[in-house]
Amino acid sequence: MKITVLGAGGMGSRFALMLHRAGNEVTLVDGWQANIDAIRKDGLQADFNGEPVTVKLPIYSPIEIDRIGDQADLIIVFTKSNQLTTMFDAVRPIINPDTYVLCLLNGIGHEDVLEKYVAKDHLLLGITMWTAGMTGPGHATLVGNGNVELQNFAPAGKDFAQQVVQVFDEAGLNATYSDNVKYAIWRKACVNGTLNSLCALLACNIGELGKTHGIEGLLKAIIAEFAAVGAHEGLQLDQAEIYQHVAATFTSDIADHYPSMYQDLVINHRKTEIDFINGTVWRKGEQYGVPTPDCQLLTQLIQMKEVLVKAK
Amino acid sequence: MKITVLGAGGMGSRFALMLHRAGNEVTLVDGWQANIDAIRKDGLQADFNGEPVTVKLPIYSPIEIDRIGDQADLIIVFTKSNQLTTMFDAVRPIINPDTYVLCLLNGIGHEDVLEKYVAKDHLLLGITMWTAGMTGPGHATLVGNGNVELQNFAPAGKDFAQQVVQVFDEAGLNATYSDNVKYAIWRKACVNGTLNSLCALLACNIGELGKTHGIEGLLKAIIAEFAAVGAHEGLQLDQAEIYQHVAATFTSDIADHYPSMYQDLVINHRKTEIDFINGTVWRKGEQYGVPTPDCQLLTQLIQMKEVLVKAK
Repeated sequence: MKITVLGAGGMGSRFALMLHRAGNEVTLVDGWQANIDAIRKDGLQADFNGEPVTVKLPIYSPIEIDRIGDQADLIIVFTKSNQLTTMFDAVRPIINPDTYVLCLLNGIGHEDVLEKYVAKDHLLLGITMWTAGMTGPGHATLVGNGNVELQNFAPAGKDFAQQVVQVFDEAGLNATYSDNVKYAIWRKACVNGTLNSLCALLACNIGELGKTHGIEGLLKAIIAEFAAVGAHEGLQLDQAEIYQHVAATFTSDIADHYPSMYQDLVINHRKTEIDFINGTVWRKGEQYGVPTPDCQLLTQLIQMKEVLVKAK
Repeated sequence: MKITVLGAGGMGSRFALMLHRAGNEVTLVDGWQANIDAIRKDGLQADFNGEPVTVKLPIYSPIEIDRIGDQADLIIVFTKSNQLTTMFDAVRPIINPDTYVLCLLNGIGHEDVLEKYVAKDHLLLGITMWTAGMTGPGHATLVGNGNVELQNFAPAGKDFAQQVVQVFDEAGLNATYSDNVKYAIWRKACVNGTLNSLCALLACNIGELGKTHGIEGLLKAIIAEFAAVGAHEGLQLDQAEIYQHVAATFTSDIADHYPSMYQDLVINHRKTEIDFINGTVWRKGEQYGVPTPDCQLLTQLIQMKEVLVKAK
């Protein structure tokens, strides 16, 4: 399959590398010039479960988009959530009526942005439990295991979605076709909208968050806001199950982990994904007339902290 | 007047020193043993607007309360809000039916605690704009100017309240009798419940807070919650005036100031006064059936942060 990956960070590099090694024709698009330079010069270099792997892949900046020749069958989105619009404005020339777009980003509401660039029946959504990191320009660390669940956004996309599942699976990405990927996306967003937002705001890890005063009530209140808004989109989130899942992380082997939003805000002073997690619940809540005070204030406070740390 | 000051921190030291110098018979009660030892040995030493002043004052620990002989006419409360119950449990033996208690602490709802120890008609409430600091045990820094507004909590206390105003005024404390001190207390609590809580949580100073995204809407929402709850207590807070007053601090000469709650939480890892500011609005809101989601979540987040910094 001809595949273009938007965003050659850790996750984009993982998918590109694994899909390339399985015989697919992969092109990268990335906005970080040092990354482009490194990959052009020495290839994409990865620690792939302890094995050093180098693959030569074409890579372009969004401003060089007219240099990409053949159209891709599939575009996979791994840009930062808050760069989605900028990236798609730039890559619009490579999206034609036959191009499918798969979004595997954390958070909810990306389809509201993507629908402006691609028809609903060419849009695929999913989640992934794969992880990945970058140690420098052109250098990725790809260890551990993961999986992908995906589904077509509109019924007509089902055949292609199933093809993608097969291509991903052949590349070792452990893909499955989901009959209700939206539920999985919202459930994961609940986890991010509690653990990530609170750990970022309070500057703590997951285990420390679990030991704070009144955390149970607050988690349940936040999850209830996701559920109340989700109900207006036809989702019946199992709040008790999600709460148990979140609470279980406090004493799990990820208890000493600082979530990505903490890394973004506290360590790297970058803009977070808050707008696509609690921020989307707030925005959709206003649209449906559902009060979401906790998601609203958490979004406001994280946005304020972004200004204070001069996040980019 | 025979006066006992509970809490010989900066503010307690200021009032004790000024009232003593004006000829009143002042006794201190404090829980910090090093402070007691220093004041017993060398007296209370102050930088009083640049002039070094030392005054010998009797000082007792709450556990020595039976050693205080004569009963005071007036007890002034300058303990930390969250130590109010502990202090009053200890000093109960020195409160008799003729003893008046004046509370000048920041925050709202102290009367709910104090009513358990003193009759309503012997309770006085007020606010002060005086400031003070401690540089070490027995050493206070008392610079700048200030004032006091106070009033009896129940009508029968009016004569004594006016006597206190006169005694304070003779001591240079710029006291005035207020016909509606409750309004002044709530208005000041609005300022603390916006600036102090947000600066503590976001770890910034007042000027930085003023430059964050969406601050106007958030300030107005928090002030509206104070107003909605205050309305159930007969107060008609002028929300527009209070918002203007808070917003004006962002570009004032206190813009580079880190409020006391920031000092407590971020610098000194102490318990904050949040329970008597936003926390009281939350508690009273539940009592009156008034939603106070911002005050609630701010209180929860500050309480969580107190646990994370192991605040004492």
